[in-house]
Amino acid sequence: MAAFSIGSAAVMLLALAVSADGDDVVVGGGGGGDRPRARDLGIRPGVFPTGPMNAITDVPGVRVGQETIIEGQDVRTGVTAILSHGGNLFREKVPGAVFVGNAFGKLAGSTQVRELGTIETPIVLTNTLAVGTAVEAVVRWTLEQEGNEDVRSVNAVVGETNDGGLNDIRGGHVTAEHVLAAIRGADEGPVAEGSVGAGTGCEAFGWKGGIGTSSRVLPDRLGGWRLGVLVQANFGGVLTMAGAPVGKALGRYAYRPPPEGQGGAADRGDGSCMIVVATDAPIDARDLERLAARAVFALARTGSSFSHGSGDFAIAFSTAPGLRERYGEAAVRTREILTSDAVSPLFQAVLEATEEAVENALLRATTTTGRGRTVEAIPVDRVRAILEHHRLVDEP
Amino acid sequence: MAAFSIGSAAVMLLALAVSADGDDVVVGGGGGGDRPRARDLGIRPGVFPTGPMNAITDVPGVRVGQETIIEGQDVRTGVTAILSHGGNLFREKVPGAVFVGNAFGKLAGSTQVRELGTIETPIVLTNTLAVGTAVEAVVRWTLEQEGNEDVRSVNAVVGETNDGGLNDIRGGHVTAEHVLAAIRGADEGPVAEGSVGAGTGCEAFGWKGGIGTSSRVLPDRLGGWRLGVLVQANFGGVLTMAGAPVGKALGRYAYRPPPEGQGGAADRGDGSCMIVVATDAPIDARDLERLAARAVFALARTGSSFSHGSGDFAIAFSTAPGLRERYGEAAVRTREILTSDAVSPLFQAVLEATEEAVENALLRATTTTGRGRTVEAIPVDRVRAILEHHRLVDEP
Amino acid sequence: MAAFSIGSAAVMLLALAVSADGDDVVVGGGGGGDRPRARDLGIRPGVFPTGPMNAITDVPGVRVGQETIIEGQDVRTGVTAILSHGGNLFREKVPGAVFVGNAFGKLAGSTQVRELGTIETPIVLTNTLAVGTAVEAVVRWTLEQEGNEDVRSVNAVVGETNDGGLNDIRGGHVTAEHVLAAIRGADEGPVAEGSVGAGTGCEAFGWKGGIGTSSRVLPDRLGGWRLGVLVQANFGGVLTMAGAPVGKALGRYAYRPPPEGQGGAADRGDGSCMIVVATDAPIDARDLERLAARAVFALARTGSSFSHGSGDFAIAFSTAPGLRERYGEAAVRTREILTSDAVSPLFQAVLEATEEAVENALLRATTTTGRGRTVEAIPVDRVRAILEHHRLVDEP
Amino acid sequence: MAAFSIGSAAVMLLALAVSADGDDVVVGGGGGGDRPRARDLGIRPGVFPTGPMNAITDVPGVRVGQETIIEGQDVRTGVTAILSHGGNLFREKVPGAVFVGNAFGKLAGSTQVRELGTIETPIVLTNTLAVGTAVEAVVRWTLEQEGNEDVRSVNAVVGETNDGGLNDIRGGHVTAEHVLAAIRGADEGPVAEGSVGAGTGCEAFGWKGGIGTSSRVLPDRLGGWRLGVLVQANFGGVLTMAGAPVGKALGRYAYRPPPEGQGGAADRGDGSCMIVVATDAPIDARDLERLAARAVFALARTGSSFSHGSGDFAIAFSTAPGLRERYGEAAVRTREILTSDAVSPLFQAVLEATEEAVENALLRATTTTGRGRTVEAIPVDRVRAILEHHRLVDEP
Repeated sequence: MAAFSIGSAAVMLLALAVSADGDDVVVGGGGGGDRPRARDLGIRPGVFPTGPMNAITDVPGVRVGQETIIEGQDVRTGVTAILSHGGNLFREKVPGAVFVGNAFGKLAGSTQVRELGTIETPIVLTNTLAVGTAVEAVVRWTLEQEGNEDVRSVNAVVGETNDGGLNDIRGGHVTAEHVLAAIRGADEGPVAEGSVGAGTGCEAFGWKGGIGTSSRVLPDRLGGWRLGVLVQANFGGVLTMAGAPVGKALGRYAYRPPPEGQGGAADRGDGSCMIVVATDAPIDARDLERLAARAVFALARTGSSFSHGSGDFAIAFSTAPGLRERYGEAAVRTREILTSDAVSPLFQAVLEATEEAVENALLRATTTTGRGRTVEAIPVDRVRAILEHHRLVDEP
Repeated sequence: MAAFSIGSAAVMLLALAVSADGDDVVVGGGGGGDRPRARDLGIRPGVFPTGPMNAITDVPGVRVGQETIIEGQDVRTGVTAILSHGGNLFREKVPGAVFVGNAFGKLAGSTQVRELGTIETPIVLTNTLAVGTAVEAVVRWTLEQEGNEDVRSVNAVVGETNDGGLNDIRGGHVTAEHVLAAIRGADEGPVAEGSVGAGTGCEAFGWKGGIGTSSRVLPDRLGGWRLGVLVQANFGGVLTMAGAPVGKALGRYAYRPPPEGQGGAADRGDGSCMIVVATDAPIDARDLERLAARAVFALARTGSSFSHGSGDFAIAFSTAPGLRERYGEAAVRTREILTSDAVSPLFQAVLEATEEAVENALLRATTTTGRGRTVEAIPVDRVRAILEHHRLVDEP
Repeated sequence: MAAFSIGSAAVMLLALAVSADGDDVVVGGGGGGDRPRARDLGIRPGVFPTGPMNAITDVPGVRVGQETIIEGQDVRTGVTAILSHGGNLFREKVPGAVFVGNAFGKLAGSTQVRELGTIETPIVLTNTLAVGTAVEAVVRWTLEQEGNEDVRSVNAVVGETNDGGLNDIRGGHVTAEHVLAAIRGADEGPVAEGSVGAGTGCEAFGWKGGIGTSSRVLPDRLGGWRLGVLVQANFGGVLTMAGAPVGKALGRYAYRPPPEGQGGAADRGDGSCMIVVATDAPIDARDLERLAARAVFALARTGSSFSHGSGDFAIAFSTAPGLRERYGEAAVRTREILTSDAVSPLFQAVLEATEEAVENALLRATTTTGRGRTVEAIPVDRVRAILEHHRLVDEP
Repeated sequence: MAAFSIGSAAVMLLALAVSADGDDVVVGGGGGGDRPRARDLGIRPGVFPTGPMNAITDVPGVRVGQETIIEGQDVRTGVTAILSHGGNLFREKVPGAVFVGNAFGKLAGSTQVRELGTIETPIVLTNTLAVGTAVEAVVRWTLEQEGNEDVRSVNAVVGETNDGGLNDIRGGHVTAEHVLAAIRGADEGPVAEGSVGAGTGCEAFGWKGGIGTSSRVLPDRLGGWRLGVLVQANFGGVLTMAGAPVGKALGRYAYRPPPEGQGGAADRGDGSCMIVVATDAPIDARDLERLAARAVFALARTGSSFSHGSGDFAIAFSTAPGLRERYGEAAVRTREILTSDAVSPLFQAVLEATEEAVENALLRATTTTGRGRTVEAIPVDRVRAILEHHRLVDEP
């Protein structure tokens, strides 16, 4: 089978098969077909409304591009790129921050982001062993942008999770071209979820994981700001959805007792989650770091075990034009910044949107086979039944 | 009314009144009377069993002492002290760590703990404006211990939350004597919960908050280690218990829309949570810091909003005798330390125990009046009904 | 004898003796008598000029107050308070930051400063075991200021070094009254150096240490900003002054070989340095933290050994009125902030001023006897001779 | 001109030309020819003796490999690799730590090192825009080592400084092959210094910079441990050598006033320094981080301005076999670890060795022309004269 790379636009056109139990099955890739998002099941985490697309792209200007890489039996990986605005990212740096939840991960670029409080490139997500390739590609892309002819220092921000369970990760199948295609294909529309882009080979809570997204819009009385989250969900634990003990009900959860008569190493809920948070609120790197922290905290709401082996990071940025660092600024510049007290509603919003983004990643992901293993999509009908049993979702 | 200070032993003897709706009412103080703990309602967070007391004191050697300070109409405060072992804490320092979730708080001693990875005093919790007094008392107490005649440097670890809503916090009613009494009264038995000690004036999720505790014991196949948590719960958000949307069902939650026709400042779920974690697993400060992080993350499971104004800190220590720093050690010392990989089950355990400790704090807290305000205990019957409606607790 | 401005009333009455080699000897306390400052010896660290007083008070608005506590044979301690401006410090919080060089120290308040980026109280320096007392006093003082009637949370910033070699530190001789007197007596004039205030019992590099200060003024082409440093020098190593190997030449330095035939524990250059940095440049907490870092780095220029036992912290703040957090601000506030690129000259300035402040502390400190020990002032004539031998100072 | 790559062994064979003022001139590359090291000029920083080679390779087992890349008129760059031991680095991870002095830099791998306290790959230094390439090569190399057939996660540690002043850094001339050659060529002998490897295009204090190294051996009474430092010196400030004001005497220093009649942007001492520290002392990641901190502090002794634009990082590791993390360890492992108190002499040692390594980098670097600019080596005769004038070096 030849290389099979798709951008976000193409993703809805994939042919789908239907599995025995009625859930969608895709060879891999795909944007989840007609599988539901969390809201379609009546899940409504938190108190604030979503934006129109319920996606990180509800924050105006934010763009997402994805490359899904499926080749032969063993290549199930990809790239997801998030761009903070449509201008020259290097010459108009956005305020940004990183929060480290657990750093068994290879996030590139975080030290400079923490020192300077700015992000100057696309944020790229991919697999663990492709970070070097992605850094190189992001640097190359940045040098080639118009206006960057004199640039000699680029801080590429690249995150990852490990898709080695389904993907021949040692084979190095992500190339610079894949990364560049994801960046160049980025657009402002809806975001494909599930087994796409950097989520192509992800697993979560014993089921197929992947990319998920969600957004919130604050009420006008709280500023009216928009906030969006995108996750690359590849982690485990004891799954909770809308408060329902889905993991236990389905019999898949971390640390469940081994079958009788067997010693068996327990599943420790290993795995990682990369989180990207965007907002149009004018908050600087100090408060963005606090916002990023809450995104990681939010994983606890889904039942994450935050195991030793996880690489749980959140990267947050503000698109507020007035806070960008621009070439040739005067030594004293004027900033309009939200008071720290006014960021609290954004903290609540990011908790909600991150929870929902993880739920979307799980629900939209499709059963995938790679390296001789099949990882099933979470069974939607059973999830629906569990939620209804616990009366935790809206009535139809 | 004269000073009314009670230690943990005395706490069960308080006379209780019964409020109109059947919930217990205590003037303040008290260990919750016959109010249930979370397990009594059938709540069983997570996958691991508790220790025999379901308290931080299930970790052998750990002691807790509490002073509840109630005077007149306006004094509703206190002190809770946690001792890591029964020996000379300064001459046998335990490995310890601090994780900062949100630092709108006055935790004393954290920088030295982070640098050296050891704790050398009792850990004391009290109110925000009493930290100086408590530091002074802890220093004084340490200097006076037998064997400490030459000590000239003491790193007191003192945490706090703000009980100024019910307590005349500006009045400075916590004295060194209260702190010393809490330390001296510390013992290994059950721990009083709710409106006692440093939790006397706490509020959480719009209800009376306070002290809560819980523990977990790992299965033998995962090491058999014990872990206990104690919280001083004084924070807010959108309360979830056992997954049930209790806050929404009761109509009290952060960011709920203001009544029609009113602008009204929204409740932003303000407030703080101090968390103390003990384990007998032989883990050093590096992994204790990671353990402490998960304790803070766990607050997300209860619906915390982690607002700007919160002081959310966790302090973790190991009681493993082989990891203590002792006077007169050789320059090269031998340590038996758990591998980082083997700490993952403890991460899961602390997530569960912290959630349950917060639930216990809320359930055991009793309606309290101070400074002309009354903060009600969460209504147990209604909580029970909500949990049953959602089929989220064990059948009777 | 020049202006001799110190806080404590008792201190003025001290009899001064003159030692055999012409250096001043004070029983303790005193502002250094006619001992020279570094500039008086021709030392000129770095490239930028000083302000008129060559003191932290060259930053307009900054105030310093000191209480020197000398009682009987064994009490040699004190308090130094730095106020960022003359208004209500709590209601007009200045941007501030803390850098931790080595945290074998009890600095109070640092976690909130790091979270919020503001300082809301006087910064108080004292001895290690008096931090609790000082925190309590700073809280008390803040509550009592006009306009603070509703304040219920105060983050006192209190640093310390250990003067237990000369002072009966276990005796608890610093009282709240001493702290309040230092705060209330703070003024904008010259700052007494040497064995005064919190430096009364300090030792440095084997000689008497104490309080030192210095300042820099940037050239107009670099912004014209002012920066001042105050140190509480109580640390050791291999002393260098103006590049000259003064420690070695005087035969006192860390890790010098023990006398033949003796095993003897080597002097490990133990001890601590607290550093306070003020500037009128409009820089926020992010860049203030970076500035504070350079203040700690600067200790390397004096020959600090940065030993395990040191508590080396720097606290930095900006007095720029436009960056203060004020009560009742709008949710979106306007800030005029220096670009990060424009702070580099301040980094150079703080390196220079910190070095010179330490030199001033040593040179102005006076021989002090306490607890049966005498710690000599560094011999000025010999220092002058060493500097001249190495041609490292200006010609007369 | 074809690619011109040399390893450390070849470095002494370069043909040298002699410049007008008697200093060596090399087209670039080279190990400094007959230019002196600091000790050859009589410079003896600090109090402890060096190891036999006065190089990081004095720590047994440590290997260094360098690739110097010189092509045509514009390529002046390279790679330096440091290996902690000769076994399988991934399967025997050494304890390691990173300290961030100023993070305007692209160091890869630091977050995982900080979380886990281990280093599992060679440490590679190169230029700013080659970090992605180097990460990819280090990952590739690790996957290919015998015994690593199942490895699916590799944390490559790659640091950099910016050689864009002399090198066509945008051209991407460092390839994976260069990186692999540096790693494969690493050996335990003397280390070439100056304009070699990752130092080929470096500049420091206005002169040619590059690679430098030094070591210290503690006296037996202090443990007898060995410590070595390697720097990639590409930074600026007001140069001091052995205490002498060399920068001022030579008329090149940061912030010197612009020539009269010109406004001119001042030189702000921009640039970066990567530092690698090795020791055979059995210290864990906690104390290694503190050791790394002192390495950065030490730059202050050379006159560093620590400017906004600097990327000043130190990476430290211990070669103690008993502290390595090995595959298949029992859950509870035994460690022999130095007490924190016993690390103080190592702190002194790293201050001294880092200072001397920077001096060696400057002294051994050779005049280099690239991109139409010539950066001169620091004039040795003039440096010698300055040191003698100030009587700061040993008599001949």
